[in-house]
Amino acid sequence: MSSTSSTPGPSGTSLIVTGTIGIDTVYTPSGHAEKVLGGSCTYFAAAASFYAPVRIVAAAGGDFPDSFRDVFRAFPAIDTAGLEVRPGSRTFAWGGKYMKNMDTRETLFTELGVLAEKPPEIPAEFRDSRIVFLANSHPGVQLGFLEQLTERRLVVADTMDLWINIARDDLLVLLRRVDGLVLNYDEAELLTGRSNTVAAARHILEMGPKFVVVKKGEHGCLLAHREGLAALPAYPAETVVDPTGAGDSFAGGMMGALAAGGGDPSSAESIRKALAHGTIIASFNIEAFSLERLKTLKRAEIDARYREYAAMVRL
Amino acid sequence: MSSTSSTPGPSGTSLIVTGTIGIDTVYTPSGHAEKVLGGSCTYFAAAASFYAPVRIVAAAGGDFPDSFRDVFRAFPAIDTAGLEVRPGSRTFAWGGKYMKNMDTRETLFTELGVLAEKPPEIPAEFRDSRIVFLANSHPGVQLGFLEQLTERRLVVADTMDLWINIARDDLLVLLRRVDGLVLNYDEAELLTGRSNTVAAARHILEMGPKFVVVKKGEHGCLLAHREGLAALPAYPAETVVDPTGAGDSFAGGMMGALAAGGGDPSSAESIRKALAHGTIIASFNIEAFSLERLKTLKRAEIDARYREYAAMVRL
Repeated sequence: MSSTSSTPGPSGTSLIVTGTIGIDTVYTPSGHAEKVLGGSCTYFAAAASFYAPVRIVAAAGGDFPDSFRDVFRAFPAIDTAGLEVRPGSRTFAWGGKYMKNMDTRETLFTELGVLAEKPPEIPAEFRDSRIVFLANSHPGVQLGFLEQLTERRLVVADTMDLWINIARDDLLVLLRRVDGLVLNYDEAELLTGRSNTVAAARHILEMGPKFVVVKKGEHGCLLAHREGLAALPAYPAETVVDPTGAGDSFAGGMMGALAAGGGDPSSAESIRKALAHGTIIASFNIEAFSLERLKTLKRAEIDARYREYAAMVRL
Repeated sequence: MSSTSSTPGPSGTSLIVTGTIGIDTVYTPSGHAEKVLGGSCTYFAAAASFYAPVRIVAAAGGDFPDSFRDVFRAFPAIDTAGLEVRPGSRTFAWGGKYMKNMDTRETLFTELGVLAEKPPEIPAEFRDSRIVFLANSHPGVQLGFLEQLTERRLVVADTMDLWINIARDDLLVLLRRVDGLVLNYDEAELLTGRSNTVAAARHILEMGPKFVVVKKGEHGCLLAHREGLAALPAYPAETVVDPTGAGDSFAGGMMGALAAGGGDPSSAESIRKALAHGTIIASFNIEAFSLERLKTLKRAEIDARYREYAAMVRL
C-alpha cells in the first residue's frame, strides 16, 4: 500500500508506530460487528492522526479488503508506506465478546496469519522517526524495531500478560531500553507481584523506564514518573458501544499529543497533559464499533470535550 | 457526654451529622486492630472537623470506653453534646476482614446494640443546623432526623445495599427530600439496575436529588449534578493499612469543606472542589487503623497533599 502522501511532520516530532492490523469480529451488549477493521496499529494511528502525522509499520494478508484501505484514507495524516500487504498470507483475525459491564471480555478466536511470520520492514524514509510507539507484540520484536530507529528520541512500549508470562526476560531487556511503558492494571500486578497499582507502577520504574502509564479502563489511568505521580479519571461515558481499541486509541492520542507538543516529550507535565488527550480520543472511540466514530470525528469535537473534561477536574 | 465546647460555627454553616459510633475489630493484610473506635459518625466528624465545627448525634452503650472519649477530645471542633451514652445498652460492634486487594471485605460479626433501639435525640442547641449529613441508616430514620432540622439548607444522605433491598420505598421517599446522595458504585447499580456508573448516577438524579456522588474507592469518584458531570481520581496511595472509614471520612471532608466554603454549597463547582478535600482526608485516614492517622494529622499536611493532588490533575 503506498503512502497517502500526508504532510510530513517536522523531523523532530515524526511519530511512528508498529503493531497489528486486524480483521475483528466483536460482540458487545450493544450489538455486534463482523470482519471490521481493527488492530492496535490501526486504532493507535487513527487516534494519533488528529494531533500529528503518523507513520505505520504493519503487515496484512492478501485478504485485506479494499474497504479497509478506504478507512485508512479517511485519516489523511496516516502515512501507510509501511503497510506491507502479503498476497500469500492472511491478515490477523480476532473475535471477542464483551460482558455486560464492558470491562471484561472473552476471546472467541485468534488467527495469527501474518503475525506468525517475520515482522514488517521499516521503509527507508521512516528511519529518521523520533517518537516511537511499540504496540503490543513480542518484546524481542519490539526491541528489534526500536534498534533500527537510530534517531529515536522517545520510545514507549505497550505489553500484555502473554509476554509477561512467556517472554519475561526479553521484556525485562526491553524495559531497560524504552522511555515509557503502557499497560493495564492487572498486567502491572502480574509483572510485579504487587496488587496495589501505585506500588506496582513504582516497582516498574525500577526496571528501567522513566515513566509507566497504568490503564484502568473506565477508571482512568495512573502515571508513575521519575518526577512524581499523576492520576486522571476516564471521561465519564454513558454511551459505550464497543470498548475495542480503547487502550490503543488512548495511547495514540497520548503519543500524538506528545509528538505535536513543543516541550520535552518525556517530562511528567508533557505526559500528564498528553494522557488527557488520550482519554478524550478513547472516549470517542468507544462510542461505535471499529473506526466508525473516529472516521467522522472533527477536531472541534475533540477540543470541546477536552475543555469539558478539563473543567471536570479543575480544582 | 457533654459538649467539648468547641467554637460554634456561624449558624449559616453549622454542620451536623447523625450516624454510628462503633467498636470495631478489623483485620487487614497489614495487621489488625481489636475493639477500636469506629463508626460512620466518628470517621465523618473527625474528617469534617479539619474544616468546620461539626455536631454529632449518635448513641453508644454503657460499654463505651473512656479511651474513646479521649479520641474525640483529640478533635476539638467536634461538638459531642449529641452523643447519647445509654448505660443499660451496648455500643454497636462490628468485625471485618479485608482481602488482599483491600477493596473487598467480609463482615465477621455485627452486634447492633443501641442501633436496634430508638434513634438518638437532637439536642435543642443543634436544631438550628443548616448543613446536614445523614450517614448510612434506615431511610425512615434518616427522614425523621432531617424533618426535625427546620433550618436545613443542604442535606446529603449516604445509603447502602441493605436499605436498597429491604426499605426501597422509604429510600425513594427520602431521595425526594435530600439535596445529595452519596453511595458506592455497586449500590448505584443495585438501586437503578444500570451497570454503567454514569447512567446509574444520572438515573438517580431523576429520583429527586440535585446531585449524586458515586464512590469508587481506589478509583476515585463520580459526581452527577443537575449542572453536569465531574470525575475525580483517588489520591494515588501506596500505603493502605486499613480502608475502614474511607467513605465516611471522604464524606466528612466533602461536607466540612462545603460548610466552610463561602459560595452556594449545592453548586456543582462547590461540590467538585469539596470532593477533592474528601479525597485527601480519606487518603490519610487509610494510612492507619481507626482514627490513629487523623488524630495526629495537621492542617498543613492536608494542604500540602491537596496542592500535590491538584497538580496531578492540572490540565
